[in-house]
Amino acid sequence: MLDHVAVSVHDVAASVNWYSSHFKCTVVYQDATWALLEFGNVRLAFVIPEQHPPHIAILGDPKTYGEPVPHRDGTSSVYIKDPDGTNVEILALAAK
Amino acid sequence: MLDHVAVSVHDVAASVNWYSSHFKCTVVYQDATWALLEFGNVRLAFVIPEQHPPHIAILGDPKTYGEPVPHRDGTSSVYIKDPDGTNVEILALAAK
Repeated sequence: MLDHVAVSVHDVAASVNWYSSHFKCTVVYQDATWALLEFGNVRLAFVIPEQHPPHIAILGDPKTYGEPVPHRDGTSSVYIKDPDGTNVEILALAAK
Repeated sequence: MLDHVAVSVHDVAASVNWYSSHFKCTVVYQDATWALLEFGNVRLAFVIPEQHPPHIAILGDPKTYGEPVPHRDGTSSVYIKDPDGTNVEILALAAK
């Protein structure tokens, strides 16, 4: 399962406004450096690349790939690189 | 709903091998210029950008945005650009 794909943008607010006015989605989080939109099946993140690297987040066991970094929302993850150097985040959801 | 996200790669086979060996997914289509992997909730495409532009495909009514282009698999779509110039494919699935 893909959790989200984070794509580079120049203006987070402009991207959030455009996607949320054209498509059925919910804004889960938004600040000046990144935002997270929830679609019915997957989430799409917009990132200012100098602040947050673009990446593909896939649900899995981050421990398989290194020492998981805990996040404030209870998730944890490890970043690895695919053959093109694209960042892939191996993400474990918060324990219920 | 996002149908798929198509990301640029340098070597389609290398990407397919890497993702399918690391993650639970199914290879739906693969040739030298692009491939389509199906995850549990969404699909991920790998494209050689000189042959197939990277894009985000969102399910919707392409007629809202222009003259839909029919594809061999029965789907039809219109490409538009988001505020960053990223290609967004408005995709209608094949009639059942």
